[in-house]
Parts: sequence; structure tokens; C-alpha cells
Amino acid sequence: MENFTFFNPTQIEFGIDKEKQIGQILAQSGVKKVLLCYGSERIKREGLFAIVSGSLAEQGIEWVELGGIISNPVISKVREAISLARSHRVDAILSVGGGSVLDSAKAIAAGVNYDGDVWDLFVGKADIESALPLFDILTLAATGSEMNCGAVVTNEATKEKFFISAPAIFPKVSIVNPALMQGVSRDYLVYSASDVIAHVIEVYFTASTYPALLSRLVESIINTVIETTEALLANPADYDARGQFAWASTLALNGLTSSGAGAFSYPNHAIEHSLSALFNVPHGAGLSVVMPAWMKWYSSRNPAQFARFAKNVFGVDSGEKGIAALEAWFNQIGTPTRLSQLGIKAADLPAIVENAVGNAHGFGIADIYTRDVINAILTAAL
Amino acid sequence: MENFTFFNPTQIEFGIDKEKQIGQILAQSGVKKVLLCYGSERIKREGLFAIVSGSLAEQGIEWVELGGIISNPVISKVREAISLARSHRVDAILSVGGGSVLDSAKAIAAGVNYDGDVWDLFVGKADIESALPLFDILTLAATGSEMNCGAVVTNEATKEKFFISAPAIFPKVSIVNPALMQGVSRDYLVYSASDVIAHVIEVYFTASTYPALLSRLVESIINTVIETTEALLANPADYDARGQFAWASTLALNGLTSSGAGAFSYPNHAIEHSLSALFNVPHGAGLSVVMPAWMKWYSSRNPAQFARFAKNVFGVDSGEKGIAALEAWFNQIGTPTRLSQLGIKAADLPAIVENAVGNAHGFGIADIYTRDVINAILTAAL
Repeated sequence: MENFTFFNPTQIEFGIDKEKQIGQILAQSGVKKVLLCYGSERIKREGLFAIVSGSLAEQGIEWVELGGIISNPVISKVREAISLARSHRVDAILSVGGGSVLDSAKAIAAGVNYDGDVWDLFVGKADIESALPLFDILTLAATGSEMNCGAVVTNEATKEKFFISAPAIFPKVSIVNPALMQGVSRDYLVYSASDVIAHVIEVYFTASTYPALLSRLVESIINTVIETTEALLANPADYDARGQFAWASTLALNGLTSSGAGAFSYPNHAIEHSLSALFNVPHGAGLSVVMPAWMKWYSSRNPAQFARFAKNVFGVDSGEKGIAALEAWFNQIGTPTRLSQLGIKAADLPAIVENAVGNAHGFGIADIYTRDVINAILTAAL
Repeated sequence: MENFTFFNPTQIEFGIDKEKQIGQILAQSGVKKVLLCYGSERIKREGLFAIVSGSLAEQGIEWVELGGIISNPVISKVREAISLARSHRVDAILSVGGGSVLDSAKAIAAGVNYDGDVWDLFVGKADIESALPLFDILTLAATGSEMNCGAVVTNEATKEKFFISAPAIFPKVSIVNPALMQGVSRDYLVYSASDVIAHVIEVYFTASTYPALLSRLVESIINTVIETTEALLANPADYDARGQFAWASTLALNGLTSSGAGAFSYPNHAIEHSLSALFNVPHGAGLSVVMPAWMKWYSSRNPAQFARFAKNVFGVDSGEKGIAALEAWFNQIGTPTRLSQLGIKAADLPAIVENAVGNAHGFGIADIYTRDVINAILTAAL
């Protein structure tokens, strides 16, 4: 059990109709004018925008709209939003959407308070000292961003998908209503399942020491994701399954499964970010391709934990069978497990490897994840 | 999955030597003078007091000492402390000890800011609107008080063991160094194991709905408590086991295992508080007596969950066997399972039942836990 600090001040408002409280929540925090960030116009068609704007209006809170944030969100949009936020002098940021909108909102919240180009915060040229208060209504459960202080954004000019992390960008209040997630497509549901599993297995397998308590918590999360994904594929209107999936997704990356772990790393994310940055692959789809290949390459470094995973998640009796079972499950639910399914060919590998080596530096794992190693993992995933 | 709010702003500083940071932590929060609460003089003999006072002195923070807080802490001591805190105009409370000291400190922190008798806050005559900032260094892992906003204190005049709960009494920072817990006696270790298990099984068995995710988290905590208690009985210096036990104890009552649950109650605590209030029984020892008897009485109301518990905690195939296995485990580790082991006889039951009926009202479960029901449960535990 290693020393740790656990601090997570985000207030979660979870459940039916919670989005209707957004005006009141902002008013209680003294907010007068927000930048309302969202992605597609779907939230307008489906009525969520009307609920949110009605709730804001009821409390006399002004808003400035910023729509059009895309999956694998880009820094140019963040820059545009920062200008907008400054010119309208908003005093808070409100994200209505999934992880891409929320991560953009975090970068915007920090960028407004930083006197320089926001990308500086991603490349370590400056630290995040403060941010505008951030609130969100989540419409897709996957990234866990609603209860942590990290964000990932792509610089489309440099093709770098990098992250920021600082206590100032914890959301003040996150609203998670599973009923708002019923419209998530089949594809994005299974990509989300892959993303949540990736969030917990990175630390589970790579930590230099990992207490059994944390392994149990991770297995609880994975088993819940497996069970509820299958339930939702059978019946997308299953609210209870939607709810457990969403809360498992939040717990997967809120500090719970890493507090007390020894040094760990995010190699699957480091490699996947290159697929997203170069080929605009959905993050979860990229992860379900990378994970089995990485696990096969890595398992001999931590055989006991792979055997544990095999037994406690899939009820099989060897690490190898556990990896095969996860890959088979990804195939069963319909998230890709091969680069070819993403339209990526052997000829594309050199560029991906080059990009991923850069990520490996950013993630502090360049000593292990060399050009050769990344190439071997990706080649196995062709 | 029921609607819920999850909000837990306590910062946990967990691990070796963290207590040495206390002066710095208080200084960063702007604290100038604290009321330093503790229990026995053991913290002076064992050197912890010297570390704490040295760290405070280094930062120029003054302190006023209040020692002598006892297990099953009493309201008269809390009143004395409130006078002391007011006359010395302290601006924060620092608890150095276990749950009894910390619960007293919470009542003191709220009481200083309340213009009336502090017991009013326990009997619902007034709400806790604010409190002095509260910090703690934990020396016994059991109550989970280090990461929640509840506290239990006994009114020795009225023989009432009642509780308070309010966001204002969340500790700002809790320091949990498992190495400070190595001196905990064998008896208090096993009573603590019983207490932690009680914290999670109350909601696990009584919730009107309980998502499988939460059942898995509870089973993770119980299995960790069982494993680490046995490890610590074999080797009290096992730091890793001490650490996992401590963190499991914190997670058992920080909101994690109840968020998303349907309506639930604390019948074991309601009944046990009467044993502590009338006979000064250690809380965990009282709970290990009440729990098996309560489980036998209750199990037919939730047979599926009792079967689940039996299978996932003890690997046995019926609810009945699961209860028997828990009782056998309590006997094995040496925490009592019979009232006779606490020196309580049949002739004492009427007074206990009378007191517990009052608690049942306070816990909002008087409709189910009538005089007859409580008498039946306790009679089965003689």
C-alpha cells in the first residue's frame, strides 16, 4: 500500500430529472452568465437544450452558446471558445454533452484564466493555477471526466492528442442522469464499455504494487460493465443497467482504483491516442484494438495479476485464456479488435508508431515503450 | 438505481509519515490556533504528541490541549471542550485519536458555532448550520468518521447514544497513517473488523433496491477486512494489511456503498447503541453480538441477498450457512457473539429494549423494530 492523497470535491447529482436543477445549482454558486458548450444539435432536437435553457432563464442566468464540439475534440475549437468566453465575460462554463464536450470545457475553463496560448498548458510550458468554475450535464458515460481533474484534447495542427490535469478543473457539480443516455448509439455504447475497462486495467496490470482491495474494486467495475453492456444491448431502455454502467464509468477514473497503488502507467492510452489523432478513430474503438494486443505483449511481466483477472472476470484458469476471453467479448459486443476493422493498414504503422513515441514521452513511459515495442504491439493488432 | 447526491470534500492524506505534515496543512488553511483533542495519554508516551506539537510549533500555530476523551464519548466532555475552545478563541479543531475523539471533535466544531446547548443538535432541536474547520490524525481504523459528516456521542445523563450529520462537519483533511495503528490491541482490532462489516452490511441487506455494482463493492470491502484481520492477528506489524484494513474502513462509510441504494436503515447500530449507552460495551463488540442474531431474524425478508452474501463472502451455498459462517468467523477472531460474553444477562434485557426502542425512533425504524422484535433479537443473542 503506497502513500497517497485522495481529494475529489466534485458534487455528483445522479438520477432522473436532475438536469432540471441546473439553473438552481448555478444560482447557488453565484453564477450570472455561462458559456454553454455542446456538441451536435442533437441536444436541441431531443429537448435537453430546452430544459437547460429554461432552467437557466428561470434563475435569471444569461448564457452564450458554443456548439459544434466534435469527438476527439480539437484545440482550435477550445481557442475559439476562450475568445468567446472572454468577450462575453462569462463567469462559469457549462458543458452539456459527453466526455469530448466536457474535456473541451475543462480546457476552456483553464484557458480563460491563462494569459497565453492554451496549448501551453498541454505541453508543460505553464501550469494551471486557476480556472473558471465548471459544471456539466453528462450525456454519455465513458471518460469518467465528470469526476476527475483531467482532460484530453487534440492539436490538429501538430497531430498531438495530449492531456492536462489540475485540481482547478474538477467540475464543481456534475449532473449524471442515465435516462439522458438512452439515445446513445449501439456503437458508442460498446466503445464506452471498452473505454471504461481500459481506465481500470491500465493501473490494475501496470502498478508496481497493487493491493488486493483495489483489485477487487476493479473487478467489481469490470464485471458490472460486462453485465450492464449485455443488458443494454438487449434492451437500451433498461434504466437500472444504464445507471450502473454510468456510475461504474465514473468510479473507474475518479481516483478510487489508483489510491494506494504503486507507480503505474497508461500505455494503452498512449498508443490509442495516436490512432485517434491520426485517423480520428473513436477512442473506445481504438482501445479495444490496442488492449488485447498490449495484454499479450505485457502479460509475462505480471503473470499473477493476469491469472487473477482471468479467474475473477471470466472464470477461466490462465492469464492467456483471460486475454482471449476479453478479446472474444469485445468481438461479441461488436467493438473492433483489429486495426483492419478501423481501416488501418500495415503501411500506416510507421506514422502511428512515430506519433505514439511522442505520446510515450508525454506519459513518462518512453523507456519501455520504444519504437520497436510499439511497432510489435500494433503489428500484432493488424 | 435510485437518485443520489454524492459529495465528499474531505482530503485524505494516507500513508507513512503523513502526520508530520499537520502543521503545514493547518498553516495552508490559515489556522492560527487549534483545540487539540485526544484520548488517553498513550499518544504522549508513544511519541505522536511530540511529532504533532513539533509540527505545529514549526509553523507558529498555537494549541490548547483537551485530553481524556473516552470510548463511547460523552456529551459532558464535549460541552467542556466547547467552553475551552470559546475561551481560547481557537479557529479550528484538531483530533488526534480514533473515532471517539474524532466524533467528539465534530460535535465540538459544530457546538462552538451554535448558540445553545450542543445536545440540541443531536435531538433535532436545531440544525448544524456551520462549524469550525476540522482536521484529524487517525490512530484507529473502524468508524469511517475520517471521511464522512456524521458523529455519535452519548448523553450519559439520559443514557442516549445519538448521532448528528451535516456537511459542515466533514473533516477538511484527515491523516491516515496505518503505521500509527500498529499499537492497537488485539481486542480493538477485532472489534474494529466487526464495526466495518456492520457499516456495509446494514445497507447491503436492508436497502429496498441495491444495484449489483454496490453489492460487489461491499463484498470487496468485507473480503478485504476478513483477509487483513487474519493477517494482522498473525503479524500486527504487517503494514500492507494494516493499510488495506484502514482504507477499507474508510470506504465502508464514505457514501460509496450507499449511493444509488434504495431506502435503507441501521437496525444493528440502533440496537447496539443501547448496549454501549447502558453497559459501556465497545461498539464493535456489541455489533458482533447483535449482527448474527439480527441476520437470523431478518434474512427471510431478503433471501436472495443473504444467499449472495453466503456465496461471495464465505463460499457457502445458503443464506443460513452464510450467517453461521460469519458468526463462526467472529468466534474465530475472538470478538463476542453472545450477550453473556459482555456480562449481560436476561434480567438486563428490559432496560436495553426500552432504550433501543428510543433509538429505533431516532433512526426512523420504530415501525419495524418494536419492543417485541428487539426483545426477540436480543433474546436470541443471550
